[in-house]
Amino acid sequence: MLDCLIRNAQIITMDDSSPVVYGSIGISCGKIAFIGSEPAGVSSKETIDAAGNIVMPGLINTHGHAAMTVLRGYADDYALKPWLFDKIFPAEAKLDRNAIIAGTRIAIAEMLASGTTSFSDMYFYEPDAARLVSETGIRASLSNGITAFSDDFCFEKDRAVTETMELIRDWHGFDGGRIRADAAIHGEYTSKPCVWEKIAELAYEHDLVTQIHISETKSEHAECISRYGLTPVQVLEKYGVFRNRVIAAHGVWLCSKDIDILAEHHASVAHNPVSNLKLASGIADIDEMISRGVNVSLGTDGCASNNNLDLFEEIKLSALLAKHIHNDPTKINAYRALKLATVNGAKAQGRENEIGMLKAGMEADLIMLDIHKAKLQPIYDPISTVVYSASGSDVCLTMVKGKILYRYGEYSTIDIEKAIYELNRTAEALRQ
Amino acid sequence: MLDCLIRNAQIITMDDSSPVVYGSIGISCGKIAFIGSEPAGVSSKETIDAAGNIVMPGLINTHGHAAMTVLRGYADDYALKPWLFDKIFPAEAKLDRNAIIAGTRIAIAEMLASGTTSFSDMYFYEPDAARLVSETGIRASLSNGITAFSDDFCFEKDRAVTETMELIRDWHGFDGGRIRADAAIHGEYTSKPCVWEKIAELAYEHDLVTQIHISETKSEHAECISRYGLTPVQVLEKYGVFRNRVIAAHGVWLCSKDIDILAEHHASVAHNPVSNLKLASGIADIDEMISRGVNVSLGTDGCASNNNLDLFEEIKLSALLAKHIHNDPTKINAYRALKLATVNGAKAQGRENEIGMLKAGMEADLIMLDIHKAKLQPIYDPISTVVYSASGSDVCLTMVKGKILYRYGEYSTIDIEKAIYELNRTAEALRQ
Repeated sequence: MLDCLIRNAQIITMDDSSPVVYGSIGISCGKIAFIGSEPAGVSSKETIDAAGNIVMPGLINTHGHAAMTVLRGYADDYALKPWLFDKIFPAEAKLDRNAIIAGTRIAIAEMLASGTTSFSDMYFYEPDAARLVSETGIRASLSNGITAFSDDFCFEKDRAVTETMELIRDWHGFDGGRIRADAAIHGEYTSKPCVWEKIAELAYEHDLVTQIHISETKSEHAECISRYGLTPVQVLEKYGVFRNRVIAAHGVWLCSKDIDILAEHHASVAHNPVSNLKLASGIADIDEMISRGVNVSLGTDGCASNNNLDLFEEIKLSALLAKHIHNDPTKINAYRALKLATVNGAKAQGRENEIGMLKAGMEADLIMLDIHKAKLQPIYDPISTVVYSASGSDVCLTMVKGKILYRYGEYSTIDIEKAIYELNRTAEALRQ
Repeated sequence: MLDCLIRNAQIITMDDSSPVVYGSIGISCGKIAFIGSEPAGVSSKETIDAAGNIVMPGLINTHGHAAMTVLRGYADDYALKPWLFDKIFPAEAKLDRNAIIAGTRIAIAEMLASGTTSFSDMYFYEPDAARLVSETGIRASLSNGITAFSDDFCFEKDRAVTETMELIRDWHGFDGGRIRADAAIHGEYTSKPCVWEKIAELAYEHDLVTQIHISETKSEHAECISRYGLTPVQVLEKYGVFRNRVIAAHGVWLCSKDIDILAEHHASVAHNPVSNLKLASGIADIDEMISRGVNVSLGTDGCASNNNLDLFEEIKLSALLAKHIHNDPTKINAYRALKLATVNGAKAQGRENEIGMLKAGMEADLIMLDIHKAKLQPIYDPISTVVYSASGSDVCLTMVKGKILYRYGEYSTIDIEKAIYELNRTAEALRQ
């Protein structure tokens, strides 16, 4: 007896051997039992008629700061330094635990409604985020990015470190791996070699993925070279940070040697095209990275520099920008663009055996897009439809580990009216 | 007695003297009677509680080929020449009148659902498009772009010319100006000076706006210079084309002198950022154009190179790309980005006294965005919300000339299921 049977679907599997199939998906014990034709005599507790809708893997957001939804639209169109120092940092200083919880809950609601089923996060109060992830049923890799500015920095007493230890102790591997603790270094420019060594050890000891902002801006990249005579990737490699898997967020200014290092260490670059344009950081050359063996995934970054968590925007823009910077419309075709947010995202999170593809034995993290509307018709190729025509608002059903968490505007694990009310109560304190 | 009264709205007026007001909008005889506070003793046939939702001017799409929705996703990720010559032109050769009608009807449905209330179109079978515009209630400026390749070209017998004359005779000024006929030259590279002179005369005689593809690609621009020793803008100016108002679509490769000519003649550039990236044509420097007095509006281009008609994508991308190319996040702020699709669009269409702004006496072309969802919360500034967080799918009500044409998925003038069925019957013929 299956738990759920979805029939009559255009299924984008993201499995290279048969990327698109028409038919059914059987789900049992949170996993995919079969795809395509139904075995004889199949029965199920619940049956969903997809009515020809597109079913595909849930999207994977590999770089963001969920709680920052509370700062959505708080400060737009500023130059980077006034944006950070006059607006974002002072606002963040006012964010208490309740604000973080309210922001993270809304972020999870937004992600579920727009088809994201797994996200990587770097912020603070992450054990609270873990509780929300646990309750809401989404999948996540959570981290608190360590920063170390002053000389009297004490690793063992640092809040980011103690939160990371708490995440490892209480949440790493929770619910069959639905929650993971990640290590995190906020960035080269916000910390020090002694910290990198210790984080590298911690990641090695617990077999953690490490999230790091790397070479997001030209000045960050150049200042690192002045400081160490090495780029951020090179100096972090020197201190052992790439021994375990790394998600390098942004990577806009990577040099050729950096790309080699990332490829050699099986690191991933989380590409954030909307945020990189909005803050005028530049455009990462993901086509070059991919062709040289780097795994490239996608991120939305936080809502203060985007201002939403809709991965469909990032997918389309990734394809468009690659065409632009190479002056070649064949670069990053629709299928490759969709891989960024699925297969490659899973690999970045260290979950390539669990999610990112619809295949028997994988976790049942999937989404359905309602195609019965003018903007998605006609459909010559459902992959083109998803990449170039759709947006997160076309998602009508979101399932994680076999549980339906969102369906046509309704959440099964979130009281959305209450969540919006609480977010606004928190935002009120930030208004002038 | 008003026809409609909308209460309790966050109103983005796009009127510089008070861009955002909270309150009511009264609508009478297809026009806005008042904005903001209600006059004493007001009564209305219909009253809508906006429940705090955002109400704003309907968006204006100043460059597109509506019927090409039938080719949505038909050919992606091709280089420009194989895309045109191997895919698009052969497919277009198969499009009969029924296909054009089916494609245009779906385009209108998509535009209404995503908040576009007025569009400029250049294609063929435009009198059929006029009938659809008339029936569905949307606003449009319709044209058939003349092409002239062979030496035995006869202006008077040319199909584009006869359609244009038919549009002028039967449709120009229809329903108080809801439909306009525009003149159109497909492009410099697809026609000849003798044609430009005649189109310029025709536009002058009937006081028409002229739509033209100008300097979309580097090679188009360069080849014109080899041919005439002048850029497309310069050679078209020489033949009198800018005597009347012109919408120059794309304008990616305009030189400094071209920008001066466009400003001097009060011409508009219709910026199509998604299409320009997808075909790797380049990025138009709209900040430079605007600062030198050119009116810049937005277009989606056709669905074969986008692949949707969602102007919200173009608005956001216009702001993002301007920041990128100038390496300055303060360029094209949210308010200026929104002007492109409203006030500036109206000016491009020659409708600046009718639409593009919510103000007493203007036409009641407006849209409502449902803000009661995670992705649009919190709201510090509704203009930021619209530009950086929203998409066309957040539109919950679309009104043109005081008539509600779309409301929460329902159309008042389109049988959407039938329209999708007919589109697919047509698309079937194009599948291999």
